[in-house]
Amino acid sequence: MLNEIGKKAKHAARTLARLTTAQKNAAIHLMADALIADQNAILTANAQDVEAGKANGLSASMVDRLMLNESRLAGIADNLRQVANLPDPVGEIFEEGTLPNGLHVRKQRVPLGVLGVIYEARPNVTVDVAGLALKSGNAVILRGGSETLHSNRALIAALQRALTQSEIPNDVIQFIDSPDRALVLDLLHLKNYVDMIIPRGGAGLHEFCRENSHVPVITGGIGICHLFVDETADLDAALKIIHNAKTQRPSVCNALDTALVHRAVAQEFLPRLVNHLAPAGVTFRAESVAASMLSHESVLPAGEKDFDTEWLSLVLGLKVVDGLDDAMEHIFAHSTAHSDGILTRTDEHAQRFVAEVDSAAVYVNASTRFTDGTELGLGAEVAISTQRLHARGPMALRELTTYKWIIIGQNHVRK
Amino acid sequence: MLNEIGKKAKHAARTLARLTTAQKNAAIHLMADALIADQNAILTANAQDVEAGKANGLSASMVDRLMLNESRLAGIADNLRQVANLPDPVGEIFEEGTLPNGLHVRKQRVPLGVLGVIYEARPNVTVDVAGLALKSGNAVILRGGSETLHSNRALIAALQRALTQSEIPNDVIQFIDSPDRALVLDLLHLKNYVDMIIPRGGAGLHEFCRENSHVPVITGGIGICHLFVDETADLDAALKIIHNAKTQRPSVCNALDTALVHRAVAQEFLPRLVNHLAPAGVTFRAESVAASMLSHESVLPAGEKDFDTEWLSLVLGLKVVDGLDDAMEHIFAHSTAHSDGILTRTDEHAQRFVAEVDSAAVYVNASTRFTDGTELGLGAEVAISTQRLHARGPMALRELTTYKWIIIGQNHVRK
Repeated sequence: MLNEIGKKAKHAARTLARLTTAQKNAAIHLMADALIADQNAILTANAQDVEAGKANGLSASMVDRLMLNESRLAGIADNLRQVANLPDPVGEIFEEGTLPNGLHVRKQRVPLGVLGVIYEARPNVTVDVAGLALKSGNAVILRGGSETLHSNRALIAALQRALTQSEIPNDVIQFIDSPDRALVLDLLHLKNYVDMIIPRGGAGLHEFCRENSHVPVITGGIGICHLFVDETADLDAALKIIHNAKTQRPSVCNALDTALVHRAVAQEFLPRLVNHLAPAGVTFRAESVAASMLSHESVLPAGEKDFDTEWLSLVLGLKVVDGLDDAMEHIFAHSTAHSDGILTRTDEHAQRFVAEVDSAAVYVNASTRFTDGTELGLGAEVAISTQRLHARGPMALRELTTYKWIIIGQNHVRK
Repeated sequence: MLNEIGKKAKHAARTLARLTTAQKNAAIHLMADALIADQNAILTANAQDVEAGKANGLSASMVDRLMLNESRLAGIADNLRQVANLPDPVGEIFEEGTLPNGLHVRKQRVPLGVLGVIYEARPNVTVDVAGLALKSGNAVILRGGSETLHSNRALIAALQRALTQSEIPNDVIQFIDSPDRALVLDLLHLKNYVDMIIPRGGAGLHEFCRENSHVPVITGGIGICHLFVDETADLDAALKIIHNAKTQRPSVCNALDTALVHRAVAQEFLPRLVNHLAPAGVTFRAESVAASMLSHESVLPAGEKDFDTEWLSLVLGLKVVDGLDDAMEHIFAHSTAHSDGILTRTDEHAQRFVAEVDSAAVYVNASTRFTDGTELGLGAEVAISTQRLHARGPMALRELTTYKWIIIGQNHVRK
């Protein structure tokens, strides 16, 4: 089954790669229209999924992610229209020049080809990814969570109808319409047809893809994030930044996991921090020195693995460090190289931190929550890469492309 | 054993990433000096490998690749010195700007980290890769063919002595000093320490890496390359270009495998082509229409798999096509997307070919033999990627780097 899907995707990708930006944008607008036109069918299908999810004991937060309503669907359609407004990366010429021998060489940005996207019970991802794939000229094979099968079926029907209206092959957006988990592995083995696998989900899914894929995988989205409060930090600002980084949306990968506090300010700052964050529901895991400075009921001693845990919840690790080097050592040992920052008014420390900490996003005096495609000006986001090849940090349209070399000679032969 | 090597490499990579360009260049010059200083030890070790290789029945061409002598070693040392002269990609700032909210965002090029390079009986690769890795700030774990173990041991001893002199940790350049083939798989599983695997060898090695690696792999180097002789091609020039692409170095991946000839010129051109190339030892595999136009002893009928074969020898496939579209269909079906070209004087055809053929290198009126890092102005080459992620075509220093986002705020929090 997957082989056939792969073959059709590869074939459709060739057509898609040649479409103009205007053709792609028109199709994306029709896709948004189709979602609204199919609202009843989509919401009915989604209600089926939600009911089954509840019956099967999905957590409240999972049910919430799964659930669509009129306004959420309108938001999803609006996101699509925004993708239509983004610049098209395909076709861009760069690094153009003429070699001493007269060969004219340039690089041109082209789509990756076929994307395989594996995700969980989030129907919005189906539409978001379909829009970004189409805009970047890539065919896509979607493999959403089985909890969202009916919703996805209805969404894909709407999207494919828009493709037909646009005279674009339906196979540009395909969906694995089966709850069989073995198909995930089959997708990872489709090396002749799929050019990139993007897992969107927890650490287990990323690990599974990394260990089993025969297709290049973008792993990411796992963030054990740190902020180091330096001796010269503006402590009032540090309270606000840490509050934002921890509490604004604790379930996401760029939320803060550990605050490292310079010994010289720890005695003053740590109790203030706990008092500032505890009312928001934050609890703390403090290493022994930090713990000795705190006597708040929300503070527990840090366990052995706590500094290697991505909390994804209102828990914050606290540690006192001797200074910049000690802070960077801790980050080197425990960070997942997603987003790490320093809060300081010492330029030299900011510069050293930025030079020596090698995370996808390195911050000075800002919340880690900005590691996001839209926040950083990409206009969208398909994943946040924490591996080092191809793209690092937020990925959007351009990161879904590659390039080819175009070499124009006047009957050149190699000497 | 490999876990220890990986850990040491990761640790050394941190030091290496912070070295200045001048420090790295000085070390590379000392490495070149050390090779010359150790010439006797290296050539003695190599003679051992060559003798064992002959005794074990290595082919003459393999023995030739394995063999070092005074002038080859001098050439290898010279290549190192040239790497020292290349610009250092590390540290480059790009895409710098200030967002509407005042966040200052830039990207900075940084080393990938730790490279794992798996190759065969070519001692020059040991030195080439070590030099490119050091210059690009990457630690490297080398796994050369067992046939070249003594040579590599001697080469690595020289290189590491130069590192010690330069006060750079030896672990920056490590070598798996064992012929045990199981260690290749172990290296592919070192996901906590290795950031990129570069296989250098035949299709089997690339396939093995792709299917078994838990670390991102750059596959490539397999080229089924095409030239399409269009109706309006300059046929005299076409003879020279095809002669060059096929015969100048037939054993390499960018050598020509198939000539596609427009029906309108086939009757004239094919016999001329065969007469021009046969004296150089080329034999031909012609599909039936092409074969019907030829009556030369060097022409055999093409077998079923011939157009899917990378010849790596003086064999050339011949096929008559109906025109540009037919040629591109053949290329789509049979190319490995390495290097494909059109020979034409019709601008519109050149433009369509360049737009629609999606190979790592797409040529107009030139030999496919230019797909090479040095030829295309990169100054060096570590691999030719035929996969689509990270880098495509020739890879040199910059392709051994990634980037990080640096985000400077004035106490910014996310709204």
